[in-house]
Amino acid sequence: MSDNPGRRRLDVETRRRELLRAGAELLAAHPDDEIWIDDVARRAGVSRGLLYHYFGGKRAFLAAVVEDEAGTLLAATEPDPDLPPGQQLRAALDAYLTYLEAHPSGYRALYLCAAGSDAQIRAIVENNLRRQEQRLLDGVTGGAPVPEPVRLAVRGWLASLIAICLDWLGNPTLDRASLCDLLVSTFAAVITAAGYAPPGAAGA
Amino acid sequence: MSDNPGRRRLDVETRRRELLRAGAELLAAHPDDEIWIDDVARRAGVSRGLLYHYFGGKRAFLAAVVEDEAGTLLAATEPDPDLPPGQQLRAALDAYLTYLEAHPSGYRALYLCAAGSDAQIRAIVENNLRRQEQRLLDGVTGGAPVPEPVRLAVRGWLASLIAICLDWLGNPTLDRASLCDLLVSTFAAVITAAGYAPPGAAGA
Repeated sequence: MSDNPGRRRLDVETRRRELLRAGAELLAAHPDDEIWIDDVARRAGVSRGLLYHYFGGKRAFLAAVVEDEAGTLLAATEPDPDLPPGQQLRAALDAYLTYLEAHPSGYRALYLCAAGSDAQIRAIVENNLRRQEQRLLDGVTGGAPVPEPVRLAVRGWLASLIAICLDWLGNPTLDRASLCDLLVSTFAAVITAAGYAPPGAAGA
Repeated sequence: MSDNPGRRRLDVETRRRELLRAGAELLAAHPDDEIWIDDVARRAGVSRGLLYHYFGGKRAFLAAVVEDEAGTLLAATEPDPDLPPGQQLRAALDAYLTYLEAHPSGYRALYLCAAGSDAQIRAIVENNLRRQEQRLLDGVTGGAPVPEPVRLAVRGWLASLIAICLDWLGNPTLDRASLCDLLVSTFAAVITAAGYAPPGAAGA
């Protein structure tokens, strides 16, 4: 069996994911300058050498952790084009909260800890935010030009989403359905406050 | 003159402020692990020894920079109790934008760069945000108990304020008055969306 290339490949992927998850847990709990490759290797039950073999070094490893979380979150919250526009945001936010509950360490690693890391990691997070922003704007305007106040309001709402989710992870007083309602209703509220009116709306 | 203690005291304060400003400019432009005390000293035109004499070391110096900016921003945006409640937020936001335009490096140092610093610096920023949050909540409820969705909405709006201001510093397409309008109107929108109704309002 161990000579089966498919099995070896699966083992490599599984091991790589275990290492990324161990990295996310450490990154969520400690600033990155306190994380040592030895801790990650010990937590994942592998040798330091194997970790270097997979990722090349500490900075590249932490970048892989953040990139993996960013990609998982984006994939999980892909808008469903078969839903009516009014329901797409609620469905995407519901998926977002499912990710949040399943990956609290990954979420904290992505949005709480990566902010102060090196330029490569900050660029991964910034790119992730830009893609979420573009999705939200496309959902609102259908690809039409976006007035600047609406763009700023959506960028701001995305920051509020992250701040609210990080707060809620540490203090989940509100039930999840009410949290989702709050996020849906504040999104509608801020784009309306920014002067956005859907095409064809009275007075638009 | 140089033996006048008042004059010497003034010199010390002036020099200390020059050093803090040089630190804010460097912190705004570079992650803190790329900042070297030598750069700060050179930029402020003092010796490395004098900088250590004032602040004790690099971490303590960066903490002093962030604490100074946090304190300046809080003092500048103190609500004016003589204004009607509806105007207090606009006046405070106007002062906030005046600070932002006068201290772009300090603002970036406080909210963009300090996030990834050490625990002491993150605690200064977190404490600063909590105080702003409490002011906003007091302005809304007058000190009455705050429903959890309203608290989360205010925390989220504060994060959106920072994200919008950081974006606007790099891309000031919107004129300042329109930016202030956007911030005032999104605040009212999110607390309403969170279910807050002023005491005595119809249906409250």
